[in-house]
Amino acid sequence: MPKIFKKRSKKIGLPPGTLVHIGEKKTEKVEISFINYDEAQYQEREIIKINKCFPFKDKPAVTWININGIHDVEIMGKIGEYVGLHPLLLEDIMNTDQRPKIEDFGDYIFIILKMLYYNEKKKEIEIEQVSLILGLNFVISFQEREGDVFNSIRERIRRGKGKIRKSGADYLAYTLIDAIVDSYFLILERTGEKIEKMEEKLVSNPTPITLQGIHNLKRDLIFLRKSVWPLREVISGLERTESSLIEESTGIYLRDVYNHSIQVIDTIETFRDMISGMLDIYLSSISNKMNEVMKVLTIIATIFIPLTFIAGIYGMNFVYIPELQLRWGYFAALFIMAVIGIIMLIYFRRKKWL
Amino acid sequence: MPKIFKKRSKKIGLPPGTLVHIGEKKTEKVEISFINYDEAQYQEREIIKINKCFPFKDKPAVTWININGIHDVEIMGKIGEYVGLHPLLLEDIMNTDQRPKIEDFGDYIFIILKMLYYNEKKKEIEIEQVSLILGLNFVISFQEREGDVFNSIRERIRRGKGKIRKSGADYLAYTLIDAIVDSYFLILERTGEKIEKMEEKLVSNPTPITLQGIHNLKRDLIFLRKSVWPLREVISGLERTESSLIEESTGIYLRDVYNHSIQVIDTIETFRDMISGMLDIYLSSISNKMNEVMKVLTIIATIFIPLTFIAGIYGMNFVYIPELQLRWGYFAALFIMAVIGIIMLIYFRRKKWL
Amino acid sequence: MPKIFKKRSKKIGLPPGTLVHIGEKKTEKVEISFINYDEAQYQEREIIKINKCFPFKDKPAVTWININGIHDVEIMGKIGEYVGLHPLLLEDIMNTDQRPKIEDFGDYIFIILKMLYYNEKKKEIEIEQVSLILGLNFVISFQEREGDVFNSIRERIRRGKGKIRKSGADYLAYTLIDAIVDSYFLILERTGEKIEKMEEKLVSNPTPITLQGIHNLKRDLIFLRKSVWPLREVISGLERTESSLIEESTGIYLRDVYNHSIQVIDTIETFRDMISGMLDIYLSSISNKMNEVMKVLTIIATIFIPLTFIAGIYGMNFVYIPELQLRWGYFAALFIMAVIGIIMLIYFRRKKWL
Amino acid sequence: MPKIFKKRSKKIGLPPGTLVHIGEKKTEKVEISFINYDEAQYQEREIIKINKCFPFKDKPAVTWININGIHDVEIMGKIGEYVGLHPLLLEDIMNTDQRPKIEDFGDYIFIILKMLYYNEKKKEIEIEQVSLILGLNFVISFQEREGDVFNSIRERIRRGKGKIRKSGADYLAYTLIDAIVDSYFLILERTGEKIEKMEEKLVSNPTPITLQGIHNLKRDLIFLRKSVWPLREVISGLERTESSLIEESTGIYLRDVYNHSIQVIDTIETFRDMISGMLDIYLSSISNKMNEVMKVLTIIATIFIPLTFIAGIYGMNFVYIPELQLRWGYFAALFIMAVIGIIMLIYFRRKKWL
Amino acid sequence: MPKIFKKRSKKIGLPPGTLVHIGEKKTEKVEISFINYDEAQYQEREIIKINKCFPFKDKPAVTWININGIHDVEIMGKIGEYVGLHPLLLEDIMNTDQRPKIEDFGDYIFIILKMLYYNEKKKEIEIEQVSLILGLNFVISFQEREGDVFNSIRERIRRGKGKIRKSGADYLAYTLIDAIVDSYFLILERTGEKIEKMEEKLVSNPTPITLQGIHNLKRDLIFLRKSVWPLREVISGLERTESSLIEESTGIYLRDVYNHSIQVIDTIETFRDMISGMLDIYLSSISNKMNEVMKVLTIIATIFIPLTFIAGIYGMNFVYIPELQLRWGYFAALFIMAVIGIIMLIYFRRKKWL
Repeated sequence: MPKIFKKRSKKIGLPPGTLVHIGEKKTEKVEISFINYDEAQYQEREIIKINKCFPFKDKPAVTWININGIHDVEIMGKIGEYVGLHPLLLEDIMNTDQRPKIEDFGDYIFIILKMLYYNEKKKEIEIEQVSLILGLNFVISFQEREGDVFNSIRERIRRGKGKIRKSGADYLAYTLIDAIVDSYFLILERTGEKIEKMEEKLVSNPTPITLQGIHNLKRDLIFLRKSVWPLREVISGLERTESSLIEESTGIYLRDVYNHSIQVIDTIETFRDMISGMLDIYLSSISNKMNEVMKVLTIIATIFIPLTFIAGIYGMNFVYIPELQLRWGYFAALFIMAVIGIIMLIYFRRKKWL
Repeated sequence: MPKIFKKRSKKIGLPPGTLVHIGEKKTEKVEISFINYDEAQYQEREIIKINKCFPFKDKPAVTWININGIHDVEIMGKIGEYVGLHPLLLEDIMNTDQRPKIEDFGDYIFIILKMLYYNEKKKEIEIEQVSLILGLNFVISFQEREGDVFNSIRERIRRGKGKIRKSGADYLAYTLIDAIVDSYFLILERTGEKIEKMEEKLVSNPTPITLQGIHNLKRDLIFLRKSVWPLREVISGLERTESSLIEESTGIYLRDVYNHSIQVIDTIETFRDMISGMLDIYLSSISNKMNEVMKVLTIIATIFIPLTFIAGIYGMNFVYIPELQLRWGYFAALFIMAVIGIIMLIYFRRKKWL
Repeated sequence: MPKIFKKRSKKIGLPPGTLVHIGEKKTEKVEISFINYDEAQYQEREIIKINKCFPFKDKPAVTWININGIHDVEIMGKIGEYVGLHPLLLEDIMNTDQRPKIEDFGDYIFIILKMLYYNEKKKEIEIEQVSLILGLNFVISFQEREGDVFNSIRERIRRGKGKIRKSGADYLAYTLIDAIVDSYFLILERTGEKIEKMEEKLVSNPTPITLQGIHNLKRDLIFLRKSVWPLREVISGLERTESSLIEESTGIYLRDVYNHSIQVIDTIETFRDMISGMLDIYLSSISNKMNEVMKVLTIIATIFIPLTFIAGIYGMNFVYIPELQLRWGYFAALFIMAVIGIIMLIYFRRKKWL
Repeated sequence: MPKIFKKRSKKIGLPPGTLVHIGEKKTEKVEISFINYDEAQYQEREIIKINKCFPFKDKPAVTWININGIHDVEIMGKIGEYVGLHPLLLEDIMNTDQRPKIEDFGDYIFIILKMLYYNEKKKEIEIEQVSLILGLNFVISFQEREGDVFNSIRERIRRGKGKIRKSGADYLAYTLIDAIVDSYFLILERTGEKIEKMEEKLVSNPTPITLQGIHNLKRDLIFLRKSVWPLREVISGLERTESSLIEESTGIYLRDVYNHSIQVIDTIETFRDMISGMLDIYLSSISNKMNEVMKVLTIIATIFIPLTFIAGIYGMNFVYIPELQLRWGYFAALFIMAVIGIIMLIYFRRKKWL
Repeated sequence: MPKIFKKRSKKIGLPPGTLVHIGEKKTEKVEISFINYDEAQYQEREIIKINKCFPFKDKPAVTWININGIHDVEIMGKIGEYVGLHPLLLEDIMNTDQRPKIEDFGDYIFIILKMLYYNEKKKEIEIEQVSLILGLNFVISFQEREGDVFNSIRERIRRGKGKIRKSGADYLAYTLIDAIVDSYFLILERTGEKIEKMEEKLVSNPTPITLQGIHNLKRDLIFLRKSVWPLREVISGLERTESSLIEESTGIYLRDVYNHSIQVIDTIETFRDMISGMLDIYLSSISNKMNEVMKVLTIIATIFIPLTFIAGIYGMNFVYIPELQLRWGYFAALFIMAVIGIIMLIYFRRKKWL
């Protein structure tokens, strides 16, 4: 599981707008990909120096610059300068501990989102911050490291499939957000499967490991919730914005992704409910088990302790114990013991302990 | 119980508006029924090719097309094309994992609802997605499989009973929604009966199976809640809409079905409260039982352990144990043991353990 | 306790507005009482045929028709026809499973409330649905059976006590609502007494019966809450209505009854809080008891098991056990046992188990 | 602790506005104190007949009439008549079970608040209802019994300290409300001290008495909450009112007392949180104790039961038990027993039970 | 941990606006630092008499007066007089038990915040109240004692780094608030580390000390929450204010610090969720342990009690016990005992107790 909380202490005391990378550095080299397209043409390049892709602001075609790696202060500064970004915005991009949010700066809209991966090796959820800047005819996206979620969008642009080549930058931004929200469904599917497995185990054989599993699921969901909850506001803010950057025809697509985000939140809440139910079941099954253990102990002890007492009595060395002299005393004693034992058993059966 | 969460992963990466059926295929063949009526006449047909029922948009009478089975991409496409539906809408119809919602597209209103059945064989609740498109003089309804909930409406149209033949398409849409909400009451009745049975068992003889039953009920309610909660917004949205498709006189009927939906939600919350109370009772009854078991063990052990100790003392083989030489030593020992036992019993009675 | 949920299944499939009585039939014959008054005169009659009381709509004096028994479809139909009531409204009156609500139909206001009785015989709360129709100069009230809550109001009208004879139909409606809300305070008083008794028992001697009692109280409160919660909206809706049927001077009285309803809700929430606290106390007192039982067992066993072991050693039949040959061996053994026992007791005292 | 709920049953059936005293009669004689002041002069009298203080409405100076004891229907009636109070208002004053509220009657504002005392003798919180009527140049305050909370205000008026003599009746009303809210802080201080003591006990030596103490604290807080929660609305209502009775300059003082009331509510919520945490700690410390008891029992039993068994074997009277004939058999047996015991101890140490 | 609640009792009965210091006196001498700057020049002084820094209101440059120590009534009075502060405001500054709040007095804005320190020696969180008065060209800040949080801001002013020297008093106020909010992140980091350590302990070896630790963490979070929750409103109030004291360009900085405050609140809620999960884990791990202890006891007792009984039987002294005479009786008895023991072990293995 990723850390719930990232160290921000190195930022404390610095003036606002100072560019400091907060978070793990997830990629060594910063990679910049440049895509420029309109309905007629399409152009794609890998860029090393960020200046190479300027000036895209003046071109009529849509430009999408995707930057993998956000720790390079120099590149960030250059982009900020060219596009005219507010220093606080750049600071936010580099601080990976941001809450998802949307801010409308007039000339451009700034969006921070969280992308979620399931790391198959470590068996845990990984989180990455994705920032989007939506301008009149460009989108700049910042990722912490190279990912494959946006590949299908690149492919769609290349092949001119769907509406994307015919639409503006706002539709591109929507497509990116949609891809991110879709990635949540994968995480939910996996979490759902885990919950189902856990439920089966809970019924068949609950162990402390099951408990640990439930606890981990719960932490995962707390974590998911923290990342996804603000998403709703973000998308709803984008939908309701009066910015001229969003065309009216994109509204219905935003409403669609908004519905998806609500569905994600709904499912997380449902999962939380289910897990809290599982904890109750776990606790009661432990109680049940202890009860069963106690019953076995009690039955054995309650039957044999009195019998042992009787045996003890006739093991005493008093000079005169009349029963001991009887020829059939031993068998009488055994018989009495058997009777007592049987009475006990009947009593336990009545109590439904057997 | 149906799955809380359906696999959407096959959709990820596809452009929005791509028609993919998500969910179980519940019927093999797609069945299309066509009903056309006004106050004077009535016409009903089973249709195989969807084109056969065009053009209904131009007719003045009300047309109701009901489609059982939503996995056929071709039929969906044709309907979409003829009526002029938005691609996202068709996508939503085919994705059975939608949250109930309402969307006003101007020319038509699009509604997604969940219908609930109680499967008597599997003893579990089944869910089906129903989508409605309400146009000026037509309603198109999509079901996942053939169901009998709408039969009584068909019958009412045939016989011209009630207001239905005299009213427009909006009243028909209301009637369909009303039938769906009514189906929830059946589920609630059944759940209520289960809860009552469970409560009786809880009092008479709580077992781990009871616990499992409570857990299943809880899951059912989490599930019901997820399906029904958004319903309120949907119907309230329909009631408040300023669309010209809804006549004013239909408003009071919508308010009525709105009240029903609130009642459904209220009852679900009440059931949840009751079930959470049942879990507490279960846990305390287990604790009580364990307490009782403990008491029996303690009483037996506490009485006989000291007595056995006394017997053990006089079983020792020391050369000189004066008591052993006494003629009445044995009876004195028995008497002392009896006294100790009786004191113990009095002590337990005082402690209210007996 | 009344059923949380009533069977509505017989209504499913019928067109909206169909008159079907849902609920228990609580009275055999329908009784109709007719009161007509203004400041100057007063007239009261028992009526058998509903037509006999027509036409009251045209009279200037205030008319109050109270109908005990709501299962007679014919009477309902006639009233509906004469006053011009909406079919859905009549359906709601006859369906006793309604949620309290208010609806303004322009010419008349329709109110559904729940009246609560404490049945002394069955020791449980009983519920009855009361519907009110407030017109320009008339009020029609529907009760499920004859009750005495409205008697004091009849008395006040007869004697001309208070403002009632000088005021219009809206004041009469307020008086009826006030009487219903007042009946809740009786239920709360009784519930409060039960809670106090339960608390005393909880401290003095908690048993599984106490638990059952707490559980029943909890159910009662869930039930009360369901009935009373919507009341606030209803009265607030009546207060805020812009209908000309409510005179301005009645506003302050409605605000007063609104405050009462909030107080009822407040008290129910407080009771719920108290009961949830009681359950915690119950559970911990069981744990405490079990702890005490365990301590007794442990003290006895821990003292005597080692001593019995020592006795066992000297009960062995080895040919050569030197201690056994000692003249004072027996007394030495007893002394050692006593020392061990005393050390144990000191240990337990230190642990505060004694 | 005061009763959560007061008997209102004697009021049921009476017409609204009937004056009936509900609650305990806390003082025998009704005491009326009359204070009249402006910046220049000051006058204070004890009055026996209420008429003696009329007519104060026409005087330009501020008049404050404080009435201790609210059960005298006659006095209430006379005041009501002279000032022109609404009958419902008088009813509310005499019914001590009111929820704190504010009502603006145009000519005067009516406020109901709860004053809280800590009764040092009974070690419990006591509650008193205080009603205020704020007119153009007068304030009438009703208390259930003589109290000393308003004394400091009287003193301030006498000495002309602070702003009070220079300000109008609205400032006087504010001062009274402020004094009441200040009295809550005393209760909170005392509750806070109790909680701290309880926490120390919880750590050092939790007993069932601690549990009872926690439970009582919880009840106290439920009770406090019920009294204080509506206060916020009341003061906020007073602050936001557009009544000409409140001068603009008083606004900032009302905001101040509003902030205090929020602080009271905040603190109550914090206390509730802390107490719920304490209950958890209590329960786990009981579990811990039981666990410890169990360990002692298990260690003793597990060590000595097998050893006693061995001793039992060599206590058997079979004719041929070869070990018994060995010269060193006894010592060998003791050695084996010691070895078994030591192995057991090592095992327990590994399990961290020792 | 600091006290949740401070004694206010010494204030009760005093007229509003009376200056009384409530809280611990955290510094002996009051220290006043005076900074005056604009883009061109910079001036810094330590002041002993507060009058020395007057008149700063008329100067065009920005003045920042920081006062460490708030218990000196005289200094407070002088500042209040010179700047024209409302008496209630001064009272609030000196009462360190205030809730964070913002108030707009027109000429100046008054802000109360809480600063949090982690005291490394006492291992607990310490709280300090910071009050800010923002005027047209001045900021006055009040601290309870000397702290180093504002040092970096002084340094920035000295060096002219960042925007601060070029901006007005509102930007200075923002910088101070930002520094305070940043200090929360330090506390959260430390709390986060504690939670992680606690979780590890919980898994490896839960003890009552762990429980105490969880409880302390919970108290810390209750405390943090109380201090931080109102912060959101304060900053949002500052952002939304229409006061001319806040320049438009500062708005985006305020939004930034608003986002930070939401993040702080989010993290606190997440921590609370995690800790409540930890308590559940703790409780179940205790239950698990007890279960394990019980199993050991039960296995030992259940195996040896019957065997000891058999040994007891053959230890009886009856004259005629046929088995005792058999030559191989002893070995037969041992064999039977072994068989019984093995059957028991198989039984436990089946029950998965071994």
